[in-house]
Order: sequence, then C-alpha cells, then structure tokens
Amino acid sequence: MSMDMIPEPQSTLDNPARRVMLKGGAGAVAALGLMQMSPAALASSHSKVPEFAQWKRIEDLIVHSANTMETVRGAIRSGVITPSPTLFVRNNLPAPSASITENMDNWEVSFEGVKNPRSLKVSDLKKMGATTVASVLQCSGNGRAFFPHGAGGTQWSVGAAGCVMWTGVPLKDVIESMGGSVGGMRYITGTGGEEIPAGIDPKTIMVERSVPMAALENAMLAWQMNDEPLDLAHGGPLRLVFPGYYGVNNVKYVKRVAMTENQTEAKIQSSGYRIRDIGVKGSAEQPSMWEMNVKSWITGPLETANTGVNLIYGVAFGGSKSVQKIEVSLDNGQNWQAAQFVGPDLGPFAWRPFVFKTNLKAGEYRVVSRATDVDGTAQPRERFENERGYLHNGWEDHGVTIKV
Amino acid sequence: MSMDMIPEPQSTLDNPARRVMLKGGAGAVAALGLMQMSPAALASSHSKVPEFAQWKRIEDLIVHSANTMETVRGAIRSGVITPSPTLFVRNNLPAPSASITENMDNWEVSFEGVKNPRSLKVSDLKKMGATTVASVLQCSGNGRAFFPHGAGGTQWSVGAAGCVMWTGVPLKDVIESMGGSVGGMRYITGTGGEEIPAGIDPKTIMVERSVPMAALENAMLAWQMNDEPLDLAHGGPLRLVFPGYYGVNNVKYVKRVAMTENQTEAKIQSSGYRIRDIGVKGSAEQPSMWEMNVKSWITGPLETANTGVNLIYGVAFGGSKSVQKIEVSLDNGQNWQAAQFVGPDLGPFAWRPFVFKTNLKAGEYRVVSRATDVDGTAQPRERFENERGYLHNGWEDHGVTIKV
Repeated sequence: MSMDMIPEPQSTLDNPARRVMLKGGAGAVAALGLMQMSPAALASSHSKVPEFAQWKRIEDLIVHSANTMETVRGAIRSGVITPSPTLFVRNNLPAPSASITENMDNWEVSFEGVKNPRSLKVSDLKKMGATTVASVLQCSGNGRAFFPHGAGGTQWSVGAAGCVMWTGVPLKDVIESMGGSVGGMRYITGTGGEEIPAGIDPKTIMVERSVPMAALENAMLAWQMNDEPLDLAHGGPLRLVFPGYYGVNNVKYVKRVAMTENQTEAKIQSSGYRIRDIGVKGSAEQPSMWEMNVKSWITGPLETANTGVNLIYGVAFGGSKSVQKIEVSLDNGQNWQAAQFVGPDLGPFAWRPFVFKTNLKAGEYRVVSRATDVDGTAQPRERFENERGYLHNGWEDHGVTIKV
Repeated sequence: MSMDMIPEPQSTLDNPARRVMLKGGAGAVAALGLMQMSPAALASSHSKVPEFAQWKRIEDLIVHSANTMETVRGAIRSGVITPSPTLFVRNNLPAPSASITENMDNWEVSFEGVKNPRSLKVSDLKKMGATTVASVLQCSGNGRAFFPHGAGGTQWSVGAAGCVMWTGVPLKDVIESMGGSVGGMRYITGTGGEEIPAGIDPKTIMVERSVPMAALENAMLAWQMNDEPLDLAHGGPLRLVFPGYYGVNNVKYVKRVAMTENQTEAKIQSSGYRIRDIGVKGSAEQPSMWEMNVKSWITGPLETANTGVNLIYGVAFGGSKSVQKIEVSLDNGQNWQAAQFVGPDLGPFAWRPFVFKTNLKAGEYRVVSRATDVDGTAQPRERFENERGYLHNGWEDHGVTIKV
C-alpha cells in the first residue's frame, strides 16, 4: 500500500492496492473522515469546499476531495504571487481542529537532535528572528493527470502549485540557539500535528517527512503566508517550509523538528513519495520527492484567441534554483522564441510570470513553453514515466491548443 | 474652498472654508452621498464599512468616512505586500456604480494629445503589453493627524499607505502606439470616471490630475492589483498608476489620458493638494503633491513589550527612489543603530519591511525609525509645517512609546 494515497478518496475505486487497504482498514479510514465524499459526489460537483477551506475563492478551485483542491489553470493569470483564496490545498490527513489557530502564539513545537533540546512556542520563535521568502509551493503529483498509465492519486493538472510569500524564523537560527545539531545527523525530520485515531499504527498514516541536512540553509518555521497569519488550510499556526522542495516536505501544524541520523520510518517517507518504474511498489531505496525541477506552463489564453496581436501568459520557475530563460513555441516545439519575464524577481525559489507577444492568423496552435534554470538545465520534452506520476516537467504535455 | 476636502465629511464641522461650501452647495453634496455618515456616527463606530468596500477586513481598518478608510497600524506587521482586504481606501468622490466592473474588459479610455488620438477598451490594452510593478500607494495626507495646528482633512496617522503590486500595460507603450505625444506637451493628465451630478461645475469636484511628463517613464494603466482583478474600491476596471507618486495622482476609473501643455484647471489640481504655509489658500503657483519622499515607521510592538529579546518591526521606502538604509533608535533619536531589511526587494517603488533585534530592560522607550534613500537623503526629525498637513516624513512624530 502506498501511503501517499490515503487522503485521496477519489482514487480508491480504481486502484487495486488501495482496495486492499480499504478492506483491512475501512473502519479506521472512516474514522478519519476520509470517506466523507464519494467519488461520484466529487465528480458531479466542484462546489463542495470543506469547512476548513470555506474562505477560498470557489470559482478559482476544482475540489478533488475533502483534502485536495486544485487551482483552475486560468486563475493564475500573470500572477507574481498567488492570492491565498486562489491557492491549491492538499492535506495528507484531515486538518486538526480549527481551535489550534485561535491562539497561534501558543502553538508549541519541540526540537530534538540538537545539543540543548527544548520546546518553544510560536511567541518564542517570533522573538528569535524573522524573514520573508517567496517560493513556489507545488505538490509532487502536480501534472499527474497527464500520465497515460493512470497514475494513482489526485489527478492534478497544473493547478497543484502557486507562488506565495512565507514569513517566519530561519530554522538555522533556532537550531543554532540550541547549540546546533548533534554530531552525525544527516536529515531534518518534521512531524505534523494531525490527530491520529486510536487503533491505527501512527507510522502508517502520520505526516512525518525527512529532508537532507543541506536543506537547513533556507528552511524556515513560518507563521505567515502572503503577509497574513497562516491559515489552518495551509498549515497554521506553524509550518515547516523548505523553499525549493516539493509541498509534502513542508510539514503543516508542525509539532516536532528533529535533526536525525536517518530518514523517518513513517510510510509517507519510507514508501510514499518515491520515484519508481510503473508497477513497482514504493520503498526507501528509491529517490524521494525532495528538490523540485525546472518547469513552466501557459496560463492563458487556454482555448481560443482572436486574430491579430495576442499576449500569451505563463509562469516559469527553476525549482530549487533560479529560472534563467523562458521560450515559447506556437508549433509544439518545432520553433522556439524568447518570451519576457514580467514583474519583480522575488528570488531563486519564486516563479516568474512571463509574456509572449505574437501576431496570430486564423488556425490552430499548439502552444508550449520551455524554461531553463540558471545551471542551463531545460525542461525536457517528455514526462519521466513513473508509477505515481511525480516530477512531471515535460513541456509537451503542459501545452495548450488554441483555436484562432 | 479646498477641493481636496470634499469627500471628507468628518472634517466639515471644524473647518470654516468647508462650512461655507456646505452653505452654498449642501444639496449638491447630499446628492453625492457625501453626507451619509455624520461625524458622530463615524466617531462612535469603526464598523460602518460602505457598500463598495464590504469585502474589506474590518478589524484591520479605521473607517473615517464613507470614502476614507485607514489601515490599523499594527495590521501591516512585517508585510512585504499589503493584503488587499487590509489596504486603505481613499476616494475623492463616491465611487461609480459597481456595474462598471461587471465586464471590466469593456471599460473604455480615450487618449488625447497624441499624434493619433483614439479610444481603447481594456481588452485592447491587455493585448498591448503587460508588466507588474510593486509600489507604495500613499495618500498625500498620510501623517496629517500629527500636525498640531489641526490640518483639515482626514486625520490619517500612518495607515493611509500600503505596498501593492500593479499589473497593466506601460502607458509609454500605449502612447507610442499612437505616434507619441504631440509636440510641446509637458504633463500627463488623467480623468476619473466618477459621475458628476447636474448643476455642479465639473471643475469644482472632478478628479482630474496632471503630473509632469517625466512620470511617463514608469506610468501604467493597471487592471490588476495584487494579482487579482482591480476592485472598484481601488479604481477598477482601470487605474492610472504613477509608481513613486502620491495616491491622488493615480486616477481611479480612468476614462481619459491626455498629454497636455498645461496642468488641468480642475480644483483638485489648481488649488487642492498644494503645499503652502499655514493659513494660506491653495493656488496653482504652490508645489503640487507629486513625488513621494523617503519615510518609515514602526509597525510593532506599538505599546508594550516584555523584558528580554524583542523584534521591532517597521516599513521603510524611498518614495520615488529606492530606500538604502534604515536605522532604529530606542531613545528618541539620541542613539541610532542599523536595522535589517527583510524579505525580497520588490524594486525602487516598493517599501521594505525591516526588523531590529534588541534586548529590552524594564522601562519606557521612545522608539523611532529613520530611513535614508539611495541618494543619501534621510528623513528629517521635524515635520514640514504646512496648511493641509502634507508630505509628513519627520521621524519624531512617527515614533511609538513602548512600556516594557
């Protein structure tokens, strides 16, 4: 059973591994509220925004399940920063009670694997330092819908991504204040504060992720997103943020941060979010979903355009490093032309909107974009086939067909 | 009568000039809806957000009148970008009907004083180019409440300012597409689309502002703010934006943009928003409120703090150029120490949040901040005394007294 599927009820009926899991643990799953929306109900309506995300802009979202909401492709426009009401939501477990955000400063997080371990409240962290970093937040499975083999999990198109600003304390400063990491530690392991019902082995469902120690350089403990207090839907009161890393590593409601010798044995790490060939089960020897890759896509127009001058918009980012170049092709990659980045550059982890001005005659165009990062690595044409549909940055699948 | 007071009913009772105006034109003023909130009603409640701003975050705003809402000082936090629900509102006339934003692409703006004058719809502008610029939006009278002579107009403290992102077409590109400006033109004149009731000489109340032609370099016609369609409260469907210039020049609902030889004769330009000594009437020979000056203020803590380590936050900007340096003093300017800018630099027209880490013993502190722009110009200690309370960037008045 692949851990990273648990909160995605819409995929339960068409995935054999998932069926086995349900057989064994249907009661537990029901207890978690994971089955509250049937696949049919989800498919028939986009308006069922769950309680904890009621403040979202419904017209900008596709509700895949109680814990997964995708941003509509056209809603991103030429956005430098994704407005919070428009940002996608992806929880791995149901969110904790909203009561935890009533007094955010009281939220407590413990630190382990440091020379002087201790617990701190958010109010303590706020006195230790503050910085603001813009970064792309993207689900590992963004683009999964393009995989023809039917990769299990939420069928994200391009909308499990946004670019937001995080404000919080650099994790490095916190760790240093505790004497630094104990020797020999190789990973940073964050644990989420979701409730685990009795009778379930926590390791099978808990949100606990490990990333290499190198990620400490830019890591933060964030209490604000887009200059507002961090909402429950996005991990408030406190979220562990690793700019440049896939969403799942950015643990919500973080209650424990540990410097560890090994990666956590939680299933979400040991077998979930692993890159492997189609048909292969997840295991800890396979590459984990850590740093993001270079990527871009068109945000508009998406279907039709008028003859004459048109501006074609999109967003591009380098993943874990700056994006350097963006090109657009109107003929599915036969000819490429440089497009222009627009707006302020918010740093290496942010995306950059781009615009391409062109004069279109009547006809049908396959419009694709190709980003190149600062190291010269460009998006490939093809997707990288893998069981769970991760890492998709192939430019061909991400194009749009426009009728003029 | 000073034009720039008309939409500020709370000042009508304590300003002689205003009383005269009311005597002569009470009917007209009532027709404009300017008297819908009595000063008493305004003073007694902050919850009366007018219809066109109902989407605002009420706890972040002080409602001064039906057309003036100030951001609460503490709501800015360390914000790089001011969230739209938190941003102040200042209209010079009641907003047009919300129906004008129903189909924003249809809004039309005429261009004059160019070689090939014509009108364009927003949909046309969107095909001509797009850029995104972060800039401070600040009312000329921000800080007026600190003037001891009782400068007439809305009693803004620090909250008639925010930093937002504008998306639109560079005005320069539009003007160039029409063959450029006719020879001899020295100003860019924008006209707002507010309705002028019959029986009133339009020049006495219309929102029409002129800025020097040099402002063309960075000017834009914006249809988005903070990556969302521009709301009616902030000038949607289309606003003329001059980054680095005081708010009043950024004409909302812009329906006409003209390259002109002279400044408009509208009162808002000819006698309103003019710098003059206390007691002197406004006239066209006095300096107009155009480019902003260097400024900063503390955003928190504002009243109390605990002993020990504290982070003191604020925002700083250079006005019409980049801010270079920010200092904080805990003793009302006797000793200054460097504070740190935090977060991404969004360019010369944006503000930068700053943080100052300090260890406080019990006592009372007068905390002030002083910004220096890229040309080496620092905020002065004193305010510049003037009739209407404009241009206030003196650091002393902007300080806060904190009890520890």
